[in-house]
Amino acid sequence: MGMTMTQKVLAAHAGLPAVKAGQLIKAKLDLVLGNDITSPVAINEFNKAGFDQIFHQDKIALVMDHFTPNKDIKAAEQCKQCRTFAKQFQVKNYFDVGDMGIEHALLPEKGLVAPGDCVIGADSHTCTYGALGAFSTGVGSTDMAAGMATGEAWFKVPSAIKFNLTGKLNKWVSGKDVILHIIGMIGVDGALYRSMEFTGEGLKNLSMDDRLCMANMAIEAGAKNGIFEVDDVTLNYVKGRVSKEYTVFQADADAEYDEVYEIDLSTIKSTVSFPHLPENTKTIDEVGDVTIDQVVIGSCTNGRLEDMETAAEILKGKHIAPDVRAIIIPGTQSIYKECIKRGYAEIFIDAGCVFSTPTCGPCLGGHMGILAAGERAVSTTNRNFVGRMGHVDSEVYLASPAVAAASALTGKISGPEEVMG
Amino acid sequence: MGMTMTQKVLAAHAGLPAVKAGQLIKAKLDLVLGNDITSPVAINEFNKAGFDQIFHQDKIALVMDHFTPNKDIKAAEQCKQCRTFAKQFQVKNYFDVGDMGIEHALLPEKGLVAPGDCVIGADSHTCTYGALGAFSTGVGSTDMAAGMATGEAWFKVPSAIKFNLTGKLNKWVSGKDVILHIIGMIGVDGALYRSMEFTGEGLKNLSMDDRLCMANMAIEAGAKNGIFEVDDVTLNYVKGRVSKEYTVFQADADAEYDEVYEIDLSTIKSTVSFPHLPENTKTIDEVGDVTIDQVVIGSCTNGRLEDMETAAEILKGKHIAPDVRAIIIPGTQSIYKECIKRGYAEIFIDAGCVFSTPTCGPCLGGHMGILAAGERAVSTTNRNFVGRMGHVDSEVYLASPAVAAASALTGKISGPEEVMG
Repeated sequence: MGMTMTQKVLAAHAGLPAVKAGQLIKAKLDLVLGNDITSPVAINEFNKAGFDQIFHQDKIALVMDHFTPNKDIKAAEQCKQCRTFAKQFQVKNYFDVGDMGIEHALLPEKGLVAPGDCVIGADSHTCTYGALGAFSTGVGSTDMAAGMATGEAWFKVPSAIKFNLTGKLNKWVSGKDVILHIIGMIGVDGALYRSMEFTGEGLKNLSMDDRLCMANMAIEAGAKNGIFEVDDVTLNYVKGRVSKEYTVFQADADAEYDEVYEIDLSTIKSTVSFPHLPENTKTIDEVGDVTIDQVVIGSCTNGRLEDMETAAEILKGKHIAPDVRAIIIPGTQSIYKECIKRGYAEIFIDAGCVFSTPTCGPCLGGHMGILAAGERAVSTTNRNFVGRMGHVDSEVYLASPAVAAASALTGKISGPEEVMG
Repeated sequence: MGMTMTQKVLAAHAGLPAVKAGQLIKAKLDLVLGNDITSPVAINEFNKAGFDQIFHQDKIALVMDHFTPNKDIKAAEQCKQCRTFAKQFQVKNYFDVGDMGIEHALLPEKGLVAPGDCVIGADSHTCTYGALGAFSTGVGSTDMAAGMATGEAWFKVPSAIKFNLTGKLNKWVSGKDVILHIIGMIGVDGALYRSMEFTGEGLKNLSMDDRLCMANMAIEAGAKNGIFEVDDVTLNYVKGRVSKEYTVFQADADAEYDEVYEIDLSTIKSTVSFPHLPENTKTIDEVGDVTIDQVVIGSCTNGRLEDMETAAEILKGKHIAPDVRAIIIPGTQSIYKECIKRGYAEIFIDAGCVFSTPTCGPCLGGHMGILAAGERAVSTTNRNFVGRMGHVDSEVYLASPAVAAASALTGKISGPEEVMG
């Protein structure tokens, strides 16, 4: 029996010739990640366990992105604890206010993740790096603590669902619509503890930003990880970023999949997840009349350059609806700077939007755009659970940057075609 | 007996030929201001008093600037209340996330304050508009409520201290250093309930941004208001901004002053207020070795274009010290945009700083840069009281943008000369 792409990566990191679904293995880690919310818990566990060294100074990343610039005293104290730990153990990849970004936008950009890597992160959207052909998954803070100390983690090898992609996305349709469509189709537990493997001839038509967005939301279908077959798009992306040696793993031809879905990208429409689950999807022609109070374009899901580009294309020369607040948050300082260079930042401000320094902020109800009771937001983030962006009586509608930008202009959930003539 | 500049403005607005210090008068208001923290209290008072109309749709300004984009649910609810009130009474000058800015940077920029105006605001730094030759002072939310309903307010006419300015500031020395110097000289209650009137031949050497900064901090000497004689600098500033008719008031030649201070601007040095009072000033050559964790450049005191320009000049082509977070917050969206156009935003990001959307944020411990226990910030804001920017065991050192930018580079309180060779 052949192995899936994920199983190939895990076998290599476990030092085993082969692994199979359900098997418990101990794998060597290429990167252990934490943020300003989860790392303090992990550091406390690390100390409690009596660890006195980290496994590798280059293979731990601590990213202060959730509630930074510090939103309150607690956030300040948590960052301080991480900063102290990073200094004590000379953690090289410590990212604080300034040269930073949202972890899952930042680490690929900095070349800290390579194809074939085995990565854990104390953040559920760590599955993002599957876009690069890495095995990457979210863990609890205790696993992060052990990972930082030992450089290893235990995994139960997942089985997989294969998504065979064909065709090409239409204008204004992006990876976000594809993954929302998939979650709508299989449900929020449709891939529970399994891998979502993306492959097929349609892959070449998906940009790295599309893939990062799709892998990012694998967890919203309950998946252990999402992973993309490595191709020229991947290799071009990592070229000049990743400086270490890496191995590209491919699924065996006879790998076994629990299910195989055929997805023709050309049939995907702009898709919106209604409250309060990502699986509550409707296509843009089904949404009806939903007035909104706020739009958020950003996050580890959709804060990348293509997302900003799409928003700028739609907002250029226009002004948002009078009763809408629109908050645009680039994922990293590099993206922020590129938005300035390309004139997007000016477009956003002229359109009446706020252009914020990178932060996870509103996505998880942190800061920079919290909702009051009864308010509705269209957001390019990844979760629309009850109270996720603020008050328990607020609502979040998940969408692509194109839909979010169009909705900001009309004041209700709208497709980009509606405003682009 | 002649009248001071402030008394002339008040007499005109009270419809009296003359007023004198200590007299109680009822004056007509040209503008009533509130923000997202104070307006909800005022709106509650307004409703409780049974008011059912506002005195003028154009003469009330509600600026959502303190905890926006909404830092938490409470902030969201407060903004929502203001938004609803503004709609109900068709308040024209309602500024929300997007086309906005920090109130005291925004209102002069938008031409909402003119020389000779009488202005109250439920914010202590409402005294800022004295830079334009207006009488402008901070009031409580109850006074704001009554002001919104009646367009009038009661005042006890203040006596005045005259500051006769001569000479010209040296390079890197700004209005901030002048006002810190003055507060250091007369103390935080040195001008209690009195006007600080700025005049003299040195005035022509102070830009409008210098004056706005100085008037802004009049309250930090306990003053009822700060007010600048109107000259060509003022008239050039209001030209093209202020569309209404206005009257320029001058102090009578025989006006009586409690005290007169002669200040030769050329003798002022870069000045820093040590914790925990603005009066605890030291000149830059006296500060000694004070390491810092954070720098904030912004606020209603120093978030204007000249402040950004100074910071950019000092930070250009350099990088901040490794252990410093530097948060730069332009006062308004126009200033933000101008910073982008002039290349300042890129300079800041390349230097390792955060460039934030306009907000009062960290100044009053709101969000966007709160300090942990034991942390120190050099800040261009206006108050360094215990716990002002976060933990009660943190410290704030007030300084000019030049000193703040230089300190960000060295990681300790430093004068600009130290880094500019």
